[in-house]
Amino acid sequence: MENVNFRTQILSGHLQNHRHATTTTISASPCVSYVPPEVSEQPFSFDVTSMRKLMDGHNLGDRDWLFNLMVQSELFNPRLRGGKVFVAPDYNHSMEQQREMTMKRIEYLVDRGVFKGWLTGKGPEAEMRKFALLEVTEIFDYALAIKIGVHFLLWGGAIQFFGTKRHHDKWLSATENYLIKGCFAMTELGHGSNVQGIETTATYEAKTGEFVINTPSESAQKYWIGAAANDATHAVIFAQLNIDGKNQGVHTFIAQIRDENGNICPNIRIADCGHKIGLNGVDNGRIWFDNLRIPRENILNSVADVSPSGKYLSAIKDPDQRFAAFLAPLTSGRVAIAVSAVYSVKISLVIAIRYALTRRAFSITANGPELLLLDYPSHQHRLLPLLAKTYAMSFAGNYLKLLYLKRSPQLMKTIHVVSSAFKAALTRHNLRTLQECREACGGQGMKTENRIGQLKCEYDAQPTFEGDNYVLMQQVCKALLAEYVEAKKRNKPFKEFGLEHMNRPSPVIPAQLISSTLRSTQFQNDIFCLRERDLLNRFAAEVSQYQAQGESKESAFIVSYQVAEDLGIAFSDRAILQSAVEAENNVTDASLKNILGLLRSLNVLVTLEEDAAFLRYGYLSTDNAAAVRKEVAKLCSEIRPQALALVSSFGIPDAFLSPIAFDWIAANSWSTVEN
Amino acid sequence: MENVNFRTQILSGHLQNHRHATTTTISASPCVSYVPPEVSEQPFSFDVTSMRKLMDGHNLGDRDWLFNLMVQSELFNPRLRGGKVFVAPDYNHSMEQQREMTMKRIEYLVDRGVFKGWLTGKGPEAEMRKFALLEVTEIFDYALAIKIGVHFLLWGGAIQFFGTKRHHDKWLSATENYLIKGCFAMTELGHGSNVQGIETTATYEAKTGEFVINTPSESAQKYWIGAAANDATHAVIFAQLNIDGKNQGVHTFIAQIRDENGNICPNIRIADCGHKIGLNGVDNGRIWFDNLRIPRENILNSVADVSPSGKYLSAIKDPDQRFAAFLAPLTSGRVAIAVSAVYSVKISLVIAIRYALTRRAFSITANGPELLLLDYPSHQHRLLPLLAKTYAMSFAGNYLKLLYLKRSPQLMKTIHVVSSAFKAALTRHNLRTLQECREACGGQGMKTENRIGQLKCEYDAQPTFEGDNYVLMQQVCKALLAEYVEAKKRNKPFKEFGLEHMNRPSPVIPAQLISSTLRSTQFQNDIFCLRERDLLNRFAAEVSQYQAQGESKESAFIVSYQVAEDLGIAFSDRAILQSAVEAENNVTDASLKNILGLLRSLNVLVTLEEDAAFLRYGYLSTDNAAAVRKEVAKLCSEIRPQALALVSSFGIPDAFLSPIAFDWIAANSWSTVEN
Repeated sequence: MENVNFRTQILSGHLQNHRHATTTTISASPCVSYVPPEVSEQPFSFDVTSMRKLMDGHNLGDRDWLFNLMVQSELFNPRLRGGKVFVAPDYNHSMEQQREMTMKRIEYLVDRGVFKGWLTGKGPEAEMRKFALLEVTEIFDYALAIKIGVHFLLWGGAIQFFGTKRHHDKWLSATENYLIKGCFAMTELGHGSNVQGIETTATYEAKTGEFVINTPSESAQKYWIGAAANDATHAVIFAQLNIDGKNQGVHTFIAQIRDENGNICPNIRIADCGHKIGLNGVDNGRIWFDNLRIPRENILNSVADVSPSGKYLSAIKDPDQRFAAFLAPLTSGRVAIAVSAVYSVKISLVIAIRYALTRRAFSITANGPELLLLDYPSHQHRLLPLLAKTYAMSFAGNYLKLLYLKRSPQLMKTIHVVSSAFKAALTRHNLRTLQECREACGGQGMKTENRIGQLKCEYDAQPTFEGDNYVLMQQVCKALLAEYVEAKKRNKPFKEFGLEHMNRPSPVIPAQLISSTLRSTQFQNDIFCLRERDLLNRFAAEVSQYQAQGESKESAFIVSYQVAEDLGIAFSDRAILQSAVEAENNVTDASLKNILGLLRSLNVLVTLEEDAAFLRYGYLSTDNAAAVRKEVAKLCSEIRPQALALVSSFGIPDAFLSPIAFDWIAANSWSTVEN
Repeated sequence: MENVNFRTQILSGHLQNHRHATTTTISASPCVSYVPPEVSEQPFSFDVTSMRKLMDGHNLGDRDWLFNLMVQSELFNPRLRGGKVFVAPDYNHSMEQQREMTMKRIEYLVDRGVFKGWLTGKGPEAEMRKFALLEVTEIFDYALAIKIGVHFLLWGGAIQFFGTKRHHDKWLSATENYLIKGCFAMTELGHGSNVQGIETTATYEAKTGEFVINTPSESAQKYWIGAAANDATHAVIFAQLNIDGKNQGVHTFIAQIRDENGNICPNIRIADCGHKIGLNGVDNGRIWFDNLRIPRENILNSVADVSPSGKYLSAIKDPDQRFAAFLAPLTSGRVAIAVSAVYSVKISLVIAIRYALTRRAFSITANGPELLLLDYPSHQHRLLPLLAKTYAMSFAGNYLKLLYLKRSPQLMKTIHVVSSAFKAALTRHNLRTLQECREACGGQGMKTENRIGQLKCEYDAQPTFEGDNYVLMQQVCKALLAEYVEAKKRNKPFKEFGLEHMNRPSPVIPAQLISSTLRSTQFQNDIFCLRERDLLNRFAAEVSQYQAQGESKESAFIVSYQVAEDLGIAFSDRAILQSAVEAENNVTDASLKNILGLLRSLNVLVTLEEDAAFLRYGYLSTDNAAAVRKEVAKLCSEIRPQALALVSSFGIPDAFLSPIAFDWIAANSWSTVEN
């Protein structure tokens, strides 16, 4: 169409239904001036310091000490924006520069004694301090935390768990002081989740008393090995142990891979994994071994050993169980990942909610002021349920750490199942919340300096590393099924994984749900338990039906994925709720209890609203589903006045937030532009 | 707990239930060798060239020509990996380097005549060629496409739509030849979605015959202006037109902002928006105006004009309608964004599905080969419904382009509603699919060279730019409500937005859905129409109920957000399905028709499975929901053998994919490492 014609048509089209033109005099918009939410919002209805104590749970002084250490150093890249100082890595740096800065920051933290006792400290206090400080490093930068985590939890953890005195004496203190730098060479190009399938071999040679490590194919190259590309001097190597031509399965070995000058050792080749969409502060690398010889003493021999003459010695006869024992350090890694996901969520929620309390858009009355974003019910519904879930998951993270501390052979299975489920649930919640918060901040969410968008990149590895979430959830379902079969076959009560509720009669959901019921812990527990119990029954029935049709157990399992996925979610939701309810029950202060109750209700009810399973399997009637929806909107509006207090309770120092969380007009003013 | 104790306990714990140890001899894993899917998969059941024609729709020769132009130039950063050449920007470059490369690439494309006719060409052929070539540039790099889009669709579009002959003569050809570089200064720090609230002023001064442009406050600084930070020489400025102290509302003006040497013009200050999580190849900037004087001729005067003496002239008397006319170029931007989202999805699906056809994990039989990822039903369920949706949305994109080409005053409202809904739906699908594909590729999805992860960053602006998706969907709902009120009040038939089905009796869903019904177009249309109709009824009822309680219309609208959100989805799903059905109906080849039918069914049924609204509002009984779920799994397994053919039909040249889409073992081999 010709442009002129088109224009004429627009004009005449509009002319057909014009109304009287209005003109207004020009005035500075009253909407656009920054008022700190501390001024515009209601006074807090509860004590945020007490709430922070509840959330952080432990080592508050240590946390604040480390926050301060970081803010004080130029290495943490402080920048003045809108009258406030913010610290964060410069993500406009190349991968090489980011890696260099990560290592410099670690050296600074070493000098300040941050890592003291991380491997040589004894007892739960030392472990809790380690967790707390690691959490603080990740609030600054996840790459920094991952690099530290690889060194301490994976490399250090492998020495602790798989090594014996000779290894502990030689490596633990040296690791803690960063005299050596460790990496964890497990994953290969061809095998990630399926660790048992790795191809690297360690062949024992009795005449020399050495293991000979080899990379038999390109797919056997070690891959994604954090710190391997640049810095690591030592590696824990996962390899198939070969003695006299027999494969004894996956075992772990120590080898030096770089000398004190940083040169790669003979018989080792290393390459870079290259640029990633996040975590470029971590130097992930690839390793090939060419007849690398290591002394017999370098097998980590707490689980199994080889005698000088080449006799294989293991107290664990079952190779599958032996293999499972080698995955222990991954559990502490998974615990740390789950908890880190919660802190990442917290950062994004503080920023998005503070911004929504100062940013206005559109007015709904003629000539009235524009509305604050958080006064839109739809915006409340975007952010506040995520806030409620984050509270629950924060308690779940604390529960998980304490469970991990209590680890014992009897608890190993429970810890594996709970840490797997929570890692999957919390990291999923993290990415979802980051995306929602980034979008809730509009274009400002795209700016790296505003953190949320960059957190998405840095945390994107979470759903697939240290156990792919799908694989982890399958393992959870398998464990639940095994417990189910055990209980039903032997007619014994359920006693693992919190399934004790299955020993009681099935809960009954009232035909007509009213507000007070919807908000009661009883109902909330009941409906989550009902869903879990029914789905476990369905899953067991479906798997056994496929088996009856001649399918193998494995095959029956993979075709029952739909109900398995629902079940995995049901299990983690119920377990997370349980930990939140426990935390709430331990609170005596009425004002804290009150708000925690609202958050618990919102967390549960929004789950009922979102997860189609409740309607699909009939746990909720359509009438009750409608009642749930109304209550969700109501809870959002009740929690709205406490939103600022709730994010203030997260205890993230201002410097670790971003300009849009404060006076974003001043932060963007011409006077701040460097010319 | 002491470590030694712990270890002993693990050992003894395991000892309690050991079984006989098995040992196997070491052998190279048979699972890890690369077999091209073209070899391992079944022959294609349909002609992929014909399918590509159907999907790309138009200008296939032009597309291939431009693909080739890019592959041939070193500027597009070709790298050899695993025996194949791939092109993609180097994202390890700083923001500054990425911007420089974008501009160099544009200069290369200018020299090759790519942009010939983009603004001076006449008729639908020229427009379709422009769309096609823009789509090809974004397959290489979205930042490149955005930078081009700002110059041609926003700056160029503003001149075309708002300007008259004097502007066309002066700027269009110069723009097409890049003798000048344009930007589009609409958004401000304080006002993004709410354009009518912008604060920049243009005051007419009759004695000099000039407009004086000012930035009255920090929140009025122009923000996010693509190309402003470095390159733009000219700007379309959105400002409140002030004549004799009266505000005539938002109008558009042209100003030169940089001279021919790239120096910023007097009375203008420019600053950078800084590093972003994606699109760093675009130099987004901020602009302040300090009594900038421009001649009267520089008002873009097709909608309204000012006489030399200062008389305001507009054929459109209603300021709201006048304002709406100024947003026209955003419509073409939205059309381009919606279509680009589909191409981004296609890239990610080709890569993730090809990888899933060559990557194995875990075996389900003792000593059997590991399973291909895409042979896991759960993996099929992750990817194939997204593939089916992408086919539907591809047809929707084609429909949208054709609708846009037919633009006329009568169609303006429809185009606005459909482009808003499709922009929101398609960009949401894009980000969701990218995330799923990135995770489906495991760690490889994190590598920038594998594209999917980086696409997430580059496309992350989509849900919030050129109309925030939430705001767009609200506008869709408002338009549907207005049509509803119009039809009901005046008792006239529905005739806009595809709502004609509301004139017919409500469809009846069979009590027991069987496979053949579930797969019928009739049923699929019926249930989508039923949902849309019922939600529109509910929405109208809820809004009017709130109004009856004394709420204003605007206020009633914002509290009815829950059903509005459901309605927006219902509308776009139905409209997308309709465009897919039309495309399918036009196909005569039986093999194409067959696979398109399967994809249509999977698209609809997975929507029924995922959107809780079908159960919540009772469109599906729980029995029928169970039947739907079974059918989804069945459809996935039926489509699985055609997965390779379906992604091959997308017509993305190999060089624009990534190493994991091909021989990823060779691409990672030691021989490819640069030493």
